[in-house]
Amino acid sequence: MSRDVYEKIINLGKRRGIIFPAFEIYGGVSGFFDYGPIGTVLKRNIEEKWRKLFVYNEGMVEIESTLIMPSQVYNASGHLAHFTDIMTKCSKCTNILRTDKLLTDIGIENAERLKTDELDRLIEKNDVRCPKCNGQLTKSEPFNLMFQVEIGTHSGSMNGFCRPEAAQGQFLAFKRIYLSERERLPLGIAQIGRCARNEIAPRKGPIRLREFTIIDFEIFVDPDNLSYPKIKYVEHEKLRLLVAQEQLAQSSKIMEITVKEALEKGIIKNQILGYFMVLASKFLNDLGIPENKQRFREALPDERAHYSQQTFDQEVWLQRWGWTEVSGHAYRTDYDLRNHMTCSGVDLRVYKAFDKPKKVAKNVLKPKMDVIEKDYGALNAQIIANLLSKSDHKVICRELNEKGFYELMGQHLIKLESKHIDIIVEEMVESGRKFIPHVVEPSFGVDRILYAVLEYAYLEKKKRVILELPLQLAPVQIYILPLVTKNGLPEKAREIFKMLLDESLTVIYDESDSIGRRYARADEIGVPICITIDYLTLEDDTVTLRDIKSWQQVRINSRDLPNLLRKYFKNKLRFDQLGKPL
Amino acid sequence: MSRDVYEKIINLGKRRGIIFPAFEIYGGVSGFFDYGPIGTVLKRNIEEKWRKLFVYNEGMVEIESTLIMPSQVYNASGHLAHFTDIMTKCSKCTNILRTDKLLTDIGIENAERLKTDELDRLIEKNDVRCPKCNGQLTKSEPFNLMFQVEIGTHSGSMNGFCRPEAAQGQFLAFKRIYLSERERLPLGIAQIGRCARNEIAPRKGPIRLREFTIIDFEIFVDPDNLSYPKIKYVEHEKLRLLVAQEQLAQSSKIMEITVKEALEKGIIKNQILGYFMVLASKFLNDLGIPENKQRFREALPDERAHYSQQTFDQEVWLQRWGWTEVSGHAYRTDYDLRNHMTCSGVDLRVYKAFDKPKKVAKNVLKPKMDVIEKDYGALNAQIIANLLSKSDHKVICRELNEKGFYELMGQHLIKLESKHIDIIVEEMVESGRKFIPHVVEPSFGVDRILYAVLEYAYLEKKKRVILELPLQLAPVQIYILPLVTKNGLPEKAREIFKMLLDESLTVIYDESDSIGRRYARADEIGVPICITIDYLTLEDDTVTLRDIKSWQQVRINSRDLPNLLRKYFKNKLRFDQLGKPL
Repeated sequence: MSRDVYEKIINLGKRRGIIFPAFEIYGGVSGFFDYGPIGTVLKRNIEEKWRKLFVYNEGMVEIESTLIMPSQVYNASGHLAHFTDIMTKCSKCTNILRTDKLLTDIGIENAERLKTDELDRLIEKNDVRCPKCNGQLTKSEPFNLMFQVEIGTHSGSMNGFCRPEAAQGQFLAFKRIYLSERERLPLGIAQIGRCARNEIAPRKGPIRLREFTIIDFEIFVDPDNLSYPKIKYVEHEKLRLLVAQEQLAQSSKIMEITVKEALEKGIIKNQILGYFMVLASKFLNDLGIPENKQRFREALPDERAHYSQQTFDQEVWLQRWGWTEVSGHAYRTDYDLRNHMTCSGVDLRVYKAFDKPKKVAKNVLKPKMDVIEKDYGALNAQIIANLLSKSDHKVICRELNEKGFYELMGQHLIKLESKHIDIIVEEMVESGRKFIPHVVEPSFGVDRILYAVLEYAYLEKKKRVILELPLQLAPVQIYILPLVTKNGLPEKAREIFKMLLDESLTVIYDESDSIGRRYARADEIGVPICITIDYLTLEDDTVTLRDIKSWQQVRINSRDLPNLLRKYFKNKLRFDQLGKPL
Repeated sequence: MSRDVYEKIINLGKRRGIIFPAFEIYGGVSGFFDYGPIGTVLKRNIEEKWRKLFVYNEGMVEIESTLIMPSQVYNASGHLAHFTDIMTKCSKCTNILRTDKLLTDIGIENAERLKTDELDRLIEKNDVRCPKCNGQLTKSEPFNLMFQVEIGTHSGSMNGFCRPEAAQGQFLAFKRIYLSERERLPLGIAQIGRCARNEIAPRKGPIRLREFTIIDFEIFVDPDNLSYPKIKYVEHEKLRLLVAQEQLAQSSKIMEITVKEALEKGIIKNQILGYFMVLASKFLNDLGIPENKQRFREALPDERAHYSQQTFDQEVWLQRWGWTEVSGHAYRTDYDLRNHMTCSGVDLRVYKAFDKPKKVAKNVLKPKMDVIEKDYGALNAQIIANLLSKSDHKVICRELNEKGFYELMGQHLIKLESKHIDIIVEEMVESGRKFIPHVVEPSFGVDRILYAVLEYAYLEKKKRVILELPLQLAPVQIYILPLVTKNGLPEKAREIFKMLLDESLTVIYDESDSIGRRYARADEIGVPICITIDYLTLEDDTVTLRDIKSWQQVRINSRDLPNLLRKYFKNKLRFDQLGKPL
């Protein structure tokens, strides 16, 4: 049976130290993978590429927060209540199953969007049974996907969770960072780090992991100004969108549209969302994933995360799994900051001065103490006046206008009518305003992206495996190969090896086996250039360079290596410009 | 009350986005800290410095394994049984306390090394009570410091733990990496990543964390050859050792000794341990921690981790806490691989071919079937012969010699004597040997090192705070400051900003407040060079450069900035060589 590209990549990954199942000697646990020496550098190169594009070039910042957080955080963020999968159990063999998957398996579409009741109804209607023992399934219930831990011990302990996303770290520390970053908006705060989700039965290898690396990029903005000046540099770039409307009409038609037009037509809600979608597309392109194998799918209202007002999932076409989400672009509004403000009692609003102070007409409430005393007694009147002063005057005015009364929450509910309150219009000078920033969040799954990079880099040529990675991603840039292990060739080769190491290039010295075998080894892990040292080298100091892509060879003087290679790896020279062809 | 340097650093850390307590808006949880934008880059620079020194320069490799691991791993590694603190509880207020700390607090030395019984005896003898409510303390018991999680759900679940060290990842994947790294020894496999330990009551800020970043470097070696050729380059380097002998004599006298002499005298057990101790000392030096503020303390036999045969703790002098461990250098022998081999049943030995095949005399056992049949019956004789063929012949020969019999474990215990077995000496040809590699492990606490770096970089000058970091660690390399925000200065400044950004320098543009204030801001986060753009710049394109260390200023043409600054940050030019002094 011929293996698909996924199997080939996992096989290569195991053999060459790229990626492999964790705890293999104990049989492994699904959803856990490790990166070997080559995979670790490849992963870091991908992260560094992202960092350059999104953080350095945009003048944004990065933080590192903890993976374990106390339960208050996830209570406020909504994850305790909403971050669940619906599962059912076999009443006979106690097998645990995701209810939506069971329905998907019998051909029911979009089952992952259905609510618990609806899922159970369909299970019953279609008489779905345990696939293992044909037993009856129990009523479904939500299962929280966070790993729980106990912080401290016994009576002094509290519940905590391993973070299912990195973003909460940014929200919790936002105020501090906003201040140390001189109160500028938009302010993008990135975080690259590990997260964990207790998936019920992960099956898709490195695509659905229980532990994974996320890049969460929270861009805090003024909700009255969602513009991004640099949009002008990319406004004619085209995006490939699969909008919600098409999906609702059972179509998967791609709309190719400039970001400018998408913004004008309201298809993308704001410039910040649009700008970083363009950047995300460029990012994947730079990683070797062609444009026509990417698309942005707009999430339907009922499949958006609990915090999002608009979401586009960036998807990549993978041979085994079809369109697969690798990043999400969500407009999280002020959902998180507002909830943390409510739950912690800490003011997370920012203050922004107007260019010059503004005169504004403001409704000011004056309690009519005599009427209130008459209706509620003298003692209560004081309390009511006090509560009123702390309430939102805008809301009170609106409710008095609309409903004719306002219910004040004290120890008891107190109904205030127009007769109890004078509304006076006062002219005031305001020098600025306070508001909760909104958040636009591009969020990337590093492991999925890495897998996609491998899939698009993988090719076979003359029965050999070649990993044709983009130049900047190469985990090893150069192989140094003495033709034979005698007559001074290894010594000369080691000299060159050392010289290139000092140039901060990643170099491997390899002297075992035939040259052909060593070339093949280099190709398998995507080494762009092999340098061979032979007898001629000892005479005239020239070496042979071999290109991974064309297998072409050129001959150059070893003295010129540092200078030429530096230019080559900065994409300033092509391979055939490096020396004389052989 | 005057604040100590720790308080000053934490204050600076909060104000300038370096390091601060996590979940502050919820009151924080002790043992959890976050890194802000400046701290995150500083931390990464420290890690990258380590990587260069230990991985790239030594031709070693790095991997990334999971933080959550199933319990089998920690059963085999001994952490389930041994990774504990001894705690007691107040029978009145249920307060949880570390028993050894209670004794340390009343002046008993080295309490952390005592066993549970001994601790309880001292608690009773000294009538130690709950410091909070004076209640009676319960009998002490061990408390495992690993955070436990449940992987999967209900019947399909298994216990897992958040890793308390990264090292197990290397042990589990060793065989795979050994093969993909072309079976070379010594093979160093590094891992830089987060770990978690459920400390009972962490109090020392970023020094004792519940979540922290570790660098675990497992160097796999041939136990018959613990030499390291590069030792010859450092053999005259001096190490500052506090050996076990001195400590046992209640002395803390430092021995200054070359690594060569320490190896010859057996004070350091092997070259690999010694070589990487020299490197660790150089590493801290490069980070700005002076030699005389460092020492290696040899761990006493009873305070070594359960897996170690010799350990040196690298300690740094900190103002609040005195000598503080920042790295450990342990000779872990084959403890971990051996246990994983036993528990998993997977052969983790490596094979090494001899230079040429060796002739060896070997004892070969031949069961005397007639005698065995007579004593145990014909059927059993077959089984016995079979069991014998699978047993370790060396052990059987030894026992027959020493005890006169050997007990064979089958379904029943069978006693075999010399009469049952012929021992024949055969000459055989062996082409290599199989063995379990030994492990030397340098292991670094990144957070502690970062804190030490801050402490040694922190100084006050003319009532201003200056973070005088080593050049290569600077989280921000350059501040760009237009003198005023009008008349074209910001435009010119942004041009220069962009130019230096393109040179991959980390640059910040800052135009608010007076120049003096902006200099002060730059000093606080350790920006080595400030570049000021003034009216003269518009005329002759020159700018002023200011040095963080001397506050000296030089004037240079902005065209020369990329070239000169690149050299400066590679330590190839001094500041005063950059231009004309002002």
